[in-house]
Parts: sequence; structure tokens; C-alpha cells
Amino acid sequence: MTSQADLVALDQSDPLAPKREEFSIPEGLIYLDGNSLGALPKAVAQHLERVVEEQWGRDLITSWNKHGWIDLSARVGGKIARLIGADPDEVIAADSTSINLFKVLLAALKLRPERRVIVSDIDNFPTDLYIAQGVNQLLGQSHELRLVKKEQVEAALDEHTAVLMLTEVDYRSGWRYDMAALTRLAQAKGALVIWDLAHSAGAFPVRLNACNADFAVGCGYKYLNGGPGAPAFLFVARRHQGAALPFLTGWMGHRAPFDFDPYYAPAEGVHRMKVGTPPVLSLSALDKALDVFADVDMNEVRRKSLRLTDLFIERMEPLCRRYGFELITPLEHERRGSQVAYAHPEGYAIMQALIASGVIGDFRAPNILRFGFTPLYVRYRDVAEAVERLEQVMSQELWKAERFRERAKVT
Amino acid sequence: MTSQADLVALDQSDPLAPKREEFSIPEGLIYLDGNSLGALPKAVAQHLERVVEEQWGRDLITSWNKHGWIDLSARVGGKIARLIGADPDEVIAADSTSINLFKVLLAALKLRPERRVIVSDIDNFPTDLYIAQGVNQLLGQSHELRLVKKEQVEAALDEHTAVLMLTEVDYRSGWRYDMAALTRLAQAKGALVIWDLAHSAGAFPVRLNACNADFAVGCGYKYLNGGPGAPAFLFVARRHQGAALPFLTGWMGHRAPFDFDPYYAPAEGVHRMKVGTPPVLSLSALDKALDVFADVDMNEVRRKSLRLTDLFIERMEPLCRRYGFELITPLEHERRGSQVAYAHPEGYAIMQALIASGVIGDFRAPNILRFGFTPLYVRYRDVAEAVERLEQVMSQELWKAERFRERAKVT
Repeated sequence: MTSQADLVALDQSDPLAPKREEFSIPEGLIYLDGNSLGALPKAVAQHLERVVEEQWGRDLITSWNKHGWIDLSARVGGKIARLIGADPDEVIAADSTSINLFKVLLAALKLRPERRVIVSDIDNFPTDLYIAQGVNQLLGQSHELRLVKKEQVEAALDEHTAVLMLTEVDYRSGWRYDMAALTRLAQAKGALVIWDLAHSAGAFPVRLNACNADFAVGCGYKYLNGGPGAPAFLFVARRHQGAALPFLTGWMGHRAPFDFDPYYAPAEGVHRMKVGTPPVLSLSALDKALDVFADVDMNEVRRKSLRLTDLFIERMEPLCRRYGFELITPLEHERRGSQVAYAHPEGYAIMQALIASGVIGDFRAPNILRFGFTPLYVRYRDVAEAVERLEQVMSQELWKAERFRERAKVT
Repeated sequence: MTSQADLVALDQSDPLAPKREEFSIPEGLIYLDGNSLGALPKAVAQHLERVVEEQWGRDLITSWNKHGWIDLSARVGGKIARLIGADPDEVIAADSTSINLFKVLLAALKLRPERRVIVSDIDNFPTDLYIAQGVNQLLGQSHELRLVKKEQVEAALDEHTAVLMLTEVDYRSGWRYDMAALTRLAQAKGALVIWDLAHSAGAFPVRLNACNADFAVGCGYKYLNGGPGAPAFLFVARRHQGAALPFLTGWMGHRAPFDFDPYYAPAEGVHRMKVGTPPVLSLSALDKALDVFADVDMNEVRRKSLRLTDLFIERMEPLCRRYGFELITPLEHERRGSQVAYAHPEGYAIMQALIASGVIGDFRAPNILRFGFTPLYVRYRDVAEAVERLEQVMSQELWKAERFRERAKVT
């Protein structure tokens, strides 16, 4: 068992400890929900003020050139590329994860016109599945959407598979796929692979090109700390950039947007995946937020993430025995993202009571308490303190209060 | 000819004059490009600071409920509805104009499955045409995209027309369609009509429901002053809301996003047209920017807009004769938006020189100088002063300087 002295020592010797100072974390709050909305990097507030006052307010339309708004999608994409094992010219930041998935899924299906099956995980984040359903409806239900449990994914792949579409880390359990192995297996069957990195980018080193990934998408507002609803990102492996077409063909993806040609011609490379004018304020926040990672070794992030999640699991063991929490996150490091989740029939009310006690995690239907560990700002002592507060919530039956049972719009 | 004394009197008696104080306009600058990027409403800067520090920074994930982020798309849509003659539950703010057009164009085509022609204006803003081309490619080139000149639109409509898709005000010439008449004509042939209000919303009163429009989209960053790349909006007439489906089916458009059901079921009404998580920072800027309109009579805006553009045209007459500017904006009020444009073979260099002299308009290929008049912050005396500076640019041949001839990325 890790002692109090061990915790202090762990925090003191943590090479990432100084990073916490770069974030604005409310006093006394233990924030274990960076996998839903990353905390505010302090530099973002100041940067955004300048973008509003100086770029928009003072330089107005000239900022498209003067402050490089026109290249912002690509510049932000380049910063993300380093974190996900891609080259800068393979990534753009734009739109939402859902819309980016729509673009790359359509592009991928058109690269495998003779194949009619999309394989995915039935427990994939719903928007990914909805997008696949919408795409299939659009194509006249020409495809089969084969949704299976994680352990059946390999068996579901065959010579009819056009696309394997997976989120690397399960948003509920924190279960992590073996990206290299699954990519290899799917490609051996002739399929293309799309990875959703919503719970991967910024959480641990991702190696898209080392795994030979075809396409990827991901989220700007979780571990990348880009702010609420931050623009998402999109990756197209260089080998597909000539043939992959977006179908969502907007002027920002045109070869020469300011020629105002009435006929569409795709821009070079990944740039054709841009559609409309990007939300510059939100994109600028993400741009600045990514600078927090500039001097960060992602291997160090992973080491600390595993120590934090190991520690949480260890501390939670007595509560599991005493109160019936059931760990649903893999113990095996290779199969784990940067979160830990427990099932409990009273999960909703327990999480509400825990939040009221100053520990923010979240609830995922039907019965899951989810705790995200962001190594850049979560301390070892936060982990111990979070479990202590949960112990109080349980031992004092705080969660039984009426006010914790009423469902809010967003849970 | 309007005298200097007339100008002073016009500004003094202008009921919209106090509105200028609500905007941050750089000292000495004459900004005639609000049709490209609206100026910064002062209240937005302060509001955004609070959204960043208090909502994101302090309240973190709880802001989805506490600060109503979850309803922001609909709330902002409701504010826009008043400006475009729609009901609040017919409009949402989301994504970009291009993506919104993609959604409503697909929805409209699926409502007319037996018809195979999309009619539009060959001079429509290119992204609208690109989106239609992408949609058609996606549908296996099943449709004909019939692109015609403005005067041929009526003749192009027939019993094969599925959708008539027009931008109400031409982005180059400022030519304005008769929305009521065109909608009636197209519907008489059995077609559906999509209006792009990019240069209409916030510029003059739009009457979508009075004109019986079917669908509409529009831009948040021009006359609505929502900031660079602000989220766009989308209108679905209530009579179509039951049958119109988005195809871009993301979790925010699901009936119950937080049930995390793996199968898509559309939300009620226009809400199903939401896709992914919206960019809350950019959307909050637009939200606050719209409050500038709260006490504004849009008929007053239109009156002033016509006076400003009339005055500009009057003052430009001698320059047309002397330097060869050719007015391409209609003199007829009913056919005019809130901008005035001139063709000139040296348009690019002339506009660069004019910008250097402190009057910002913009250039549109191949040869058009475009001037936007935003009645909320442009004064009558600005109009006179702008023409005087242009006269200087021409008489002193300032535009011949080498530095004004090099094309910037965005022009």
C-alpha cells in the first residue's frame, strides 16, 4: 500500500509537477474529468484576449494574412501531429470529431468501392456509430454496419470489410485497443482503418504512422485542453492524400479559394479536408493550449498516467469490497487508457454526491462512474484525496440525498 | 449633391448613431468590410473573458448545465430567428455555412426523390456550388446541377427541379433576389427553395416565413458581427421539420444524446440538424454579439443602408467618369443588398492602396472593388471621406506603387 509519505515523495519527484502551474485549477477542487473537458491553460485566457482585441478588433479583416488565420487549421494540425505520431502535413484542425469522421469514412469507403462492410465496436462512442449510420443511409443502405463486441472485432474482419472504424480507448471502460495489431489485421484483409483518438491524443504517445494507420480523427477539448467544443482534428496518411476526397467540398478545401471559381477542385493533400471558414476564436484557444505540450515528453506523460491510475485502483480496492464498486478498466497496462471506471447500480447519485464534495468525475449511462487522470495537472495526492472523499460519500450515505437523484440535462 | 452640412445633419439625426459606440472601431479607420468580417462589439470582449475564466476555468464541465452550453445552439438560433423572419424553434446556430448547406441540401433532395435537378446561380458564392457538386458526387452524379445567370433562373425552373438554391444577395455585385417571387415561382413548379442569407442576416429585415421559404442557411461573422469564422446558422420551416433528416447524424442531433444509445434516432424539430459538440467559445461570442440587435428596428437599418449606399454611389459618380470605375450594383433599391461594388481593371492594386490610406473594403476576383455598409457603425461622413481618399489614391496614382501589386494569400 502506498503510504502518505510515498505520495508526498511521488509528487515531489514528479518531473511533470511544474506543468500544473500552467493550468487554472480552482482551489480545493480535484478535477478528474479532463477526459470530458480539459482544464484551462492560463496562457489561453491572455492569448484569447489579444486575439479578440488586437486581431479581430484592431486589425479586422487584415488578420487573415497579418495574423495567419488562413493557415491556422494547418498550423494547429501540425502541433497535434507531434502528439499522435504523424507528420505535420498529415493533420488539420477543423470542424467537430463527428464531421471529420464523416469526411474520412466517406473518403475511405470510396477507396474500397467493391467492399460493403463497415466493422466497428458496438460500444464505440455513439456519435461514431451515428455517423456511420448516416453515411450508410446516404449511400442507400448499400453497406452493412457490422457492430460487434471488442473481443469479436478480429473475427468480424474478412475480405468484404471496407473499413474498420474504432475508438482506440473506450469512453466508458478506458479499455485500449492494440492499434498496431488491429491495423495490421484489418489491412491484411484488405480493409482500411480509421482510428478515433478522442481519448488518446494528449493522454499518451500515439504512433499513427508507426502503426501504419490510414485515417484518424480526434477531439480538441479533452486531453488537448483546447476549450469547450474546441475544433477537432483529422489525419490522412500521406499515401492516401492523392486519392482521398472529402465530398464535404467547401471553399477552404478548394485548390485556390480566392480565385472564386464556380467549379470545385481539391486542394493538395490533407488541406482538401477543410470545408468552411474555421471558428478562429475557438481554434486560437486550441492553438495556444497546445503550447503546453511543447516541452513535454509524452513517454513521461504515459509513465505518470499509469502510476496515477494504478494508485487509484489500489486505493479503491477496499471500497470495491465494502460498497460494491466493480472495476471495469483493465488492470493490464497495455490495455488501459488514462482513465479508470467502475460500475455501480447507484452510480448517478454517487457521482453527484462526490461532485458536491469537490471531486469532479463523470457518470456514463447506464451505471458507470468515470475518472479521468490528466498527468499534466493531476497530482498523486489528488488521487488519494479523491478516494477518501468517495469513502465519506459512501460511509455517510451522502449520495442518498434527494437532490443527487435528479438527472441534469448533461450527465 | 449632398453637401457637407447635409452629412453632418444626417449623422446627427441618425437614430442608429448611438449604436456605433457599442463597437470597437480603430481610430481614424473607415471600415467598409463588415460584409466580410463584422467589427467587434465591445461587450463581446468582456463576455468572452468571463466565459473563459468563469465558465471554462472555474466551473469546468458543470458549465454544460450551469451556464447552459447545452442549449447554446438553440438559444443563439432563437436570437437570429427574429432578424430573419423565422420562429425561434426553426433556427439553430452550428457548424459553418458550407456544412449547414450540405445538411439542408441533402435533406431537401431526399424530400423530392423523384426529381433530379438542382438549380442555382453560376455567380453564387463558390462554396455553395462546391457543396452542391460534392453532394451530387456523393449521390453518384444522379442529379443535374443547372447553373445559370440570374436572369435565367426563372426559365431554368421546371417540373424536374428538386431544389432551387440561391444566395439572396450576390457577394460580388450586391444584387438582391426577390425572395418572395422566386420562392413562389419555384414552389409553383413543385421545387423546394434554400436561401443562403450570408449577406442578408443583420443587413436588412429578412422575412423567411412571410416568403414561405423552405430552408435557409447563413453566416455568423458578417453583418451579425459574431467574430472571425463564427458559427453559422440554419433554418428549417416548421412544416418540414418532421420529414427533413440531416444524414450528418451526430450525437448532438440525437433524441437523447446522454442515453448513449448505439442507434441513431433524430431529435425533435430543427435540433436534429445539430451534429457534434459546438465550439462554445466562438458560439458565445456570437451569442453576445447578437445582443447589439436587441433594441434595433431592422426597418431602420434598411433605411440607413439604402441612404448610405445611395450616397456612396452619388459621390462615386465623378470618379467613375474620371477613372473608369464601373458600377455593378443595381440602382434600384429593391435589387440591392447593403454593399456597393465597382469593376476596374486595376481593382486589386487600387484596393490595396485604398486600404493603406485607411479605408478598408475588399477585392473580389477578377476585377471587383467591394464596399460593405453596416448601418450599425458606418456614418454618413465615413462614406464621403472614403470617396475622398479613393479620389486621392487615383489622382496621385498611389495604387501604382509596386507593393500594392503583390497578391496576399487572402484578397
